Amino acid sequence: MRFAKVAVVGVGLIGGSFALALKAARLAGEVVGVGRGAANLRLALEQGVIDAIGTDAAGADLVLIAAPVAQYPAILAALAPALKAGALVTDAGSTKRDVIAAARAALGARIAQFVPAHPIAGAERGGASAASAELFRGRRVVLTPLAENPALAVQAIEEVWSACGARVSRMDAAEHDAVLAAVSHLPHLLAYALVHEVAGRENSAQLFGFAAGGFRDFTRIASSHPEMWRDICVANRDRLLGELDRYVRKLQDLRPLVEAGDGAALHKLFEEARAARNRWLAGEHE
Amino acid sequence: MRFAKVAVVGVGLIGGSFALALKAARLAGEVVGVGRGAANLRLALEQGVIDAIGTDAAGADLVLIAAPVAQYPAILAALAPALKAGALVTDAGSTKRDVIAAARAALGARIAQFVPAHPIAGAERGGASAASAELFRGRRVVLTPLAENPALAVQAIEEVWSACGARVSRMDAAEHDAVLAAVSHLPHLLAYALVHEVAGRENSAQLFGFAAGGFRDFTRIASSHPEMWRDICVANRDRLLGELDRYVRKLQDLRPLVEAGDGAALHKLFEEARAARNRWLAGEHE
Repeated sequence: MRFAKVAVVGVGLIGGSFALALKAARLAGEVVGVGRGAANLRLALEQGVIDAIGTDAAGADLVLIAAPVAQYPAILAALAPALKAGALVTDAGSTKRDVIAAARAALGARIAQFVPAHPIAGAERGGASAASAELFRGRRVVLTPLAENPALAVQAIEEVWSACGARVSRMDAAEHDAVLAAVSHLPHLLAYALVHEVAGRENSAQLFGFAAGGFRDFTRIASSHPEMWRDICVANRDRLLGELDRYVRKLQDLRPLVEAGDGAALHKLFEEARAARNRWLAGEHE
Repeated sequence: MRFAKVAVVGVGLIGGSFALALKAARLAGEVVGVGRGAANLRLALEQGVIDAIGTDAAGADLVLIAAPVAQYPAILAALAPALKAGALVTDAGSTKRDVIAAARAALGARIAQFVPAHPIAGAERGGASAASAELFRGRRVVLTPLAENPALAVQAIEEVWSACGARVSRMDAAEHDAVLAAVSHLPHLLAYALVHEVAGRENSAQLFGFAAGGFRDFTRIASSHPEMWRDICVANRDRLLGELDRYVRKLQDLRPLVEAGDGAALHKLFEEARAARNRWLAGEHE
């Protein structure tokens, strides 16, 4: 057993799945769940996702923080006093610069024990009841290691996520936040915005009444966890703002093509977009 | 048998499914397929989607036009000379004002035989090989009847689409085009625009490499048929432009919230959007 005691702070879809995956890989002894929601923790205990409910990470050899990123300062401040020397800490935050700043503030010199990570996996369903040992299978996990991290610590955390079935890569935190702003944070904001716009119209019942499969898939991510996405948008607001501005410019560039009914230009753009997406689906960028 | 001979002009996903659904409902005798793609028509014949390949709708008692809407003027001009007196014509175009204008120009006084329709069903896959007798089951079909249509003609076309399993409703053509611009045409344009924007970036390989399930679903409709969507965007450009402008204004209203990191306002908007979408998914507007 690699880690006799694992603490998971935030036993939702990600935290619960991490616990199950580590157990399935026989890397975890006891898994202690820590979190805000007492009912969710009891459910996680009943379903065998965790072995015990705790209030901190005392004695844990491995800690995962899997909570909305605005909670990190409080979570890390609470964990720091009881954090075992030699324990490794990783996380599942969707933004990395803010998470690292919070960890530096709370952990001081022990920042070397924290190897930041972002598993790019999720669903609009949350909670421990949605957890699965297979959630990370084939999914990407991005590590954004710190200059202070010993190479062995980064390697150990890489092995942990690999044992969960993930494809692990490494990236600079700022680069991570820029990439995710473009392909994840912006689309979420756009989907929320479209649903909110439609919902606020006088004839919204009629509009929703004739919305079909295209609208459903386009807006699936607008059923995502509002608190989690609020925190992401706030934490990564500089990058997200840059992406939002780029996208608005793209729409403004498109506007005259629509206005003029420029079928040739629209056809070219649609063809290029479809071809790019289909290459992506075919796995060209894996 | 209600219609001894049915002509389907455009034997793709929609036209092929219409043929299969009418046969399953025992409403169609012989189904003749008409279209541009010889290989597709031969496939449709081999697979029993159609019974014969034709060059026009001569002798047909019921005609379905299921082609990109820019083709309607040519299709209707070709059909008009041989159109049987008393035949009924319906269609599957995603826009209705342009289709009706094309039909009036081509059919003259026989416009009374044309009952415009829009089955709100589709997928990014096309072609006769994707056709299914069940495609329209539970889906909406909007009729936009004309002042010239005899009530019995409208009723007959309503029964045809109902026999395919669809939920048929009636709407004014202008209203139809406005509603669909908001919940279908705009989302398609937005998805194409996002993929095109990402694909055009210097680090597009990296961006696609870390795009995940949210991006995949958000952009599913960017794999739609470029010619079909070009035609829709051109035909409905006034309404689409209005929706595009509204959406850009929405994003511009959102911008200061992101810039200021206004978590409370973002949280409220995300909560409201999620709640509205979840009510829609729960069937509130059916």
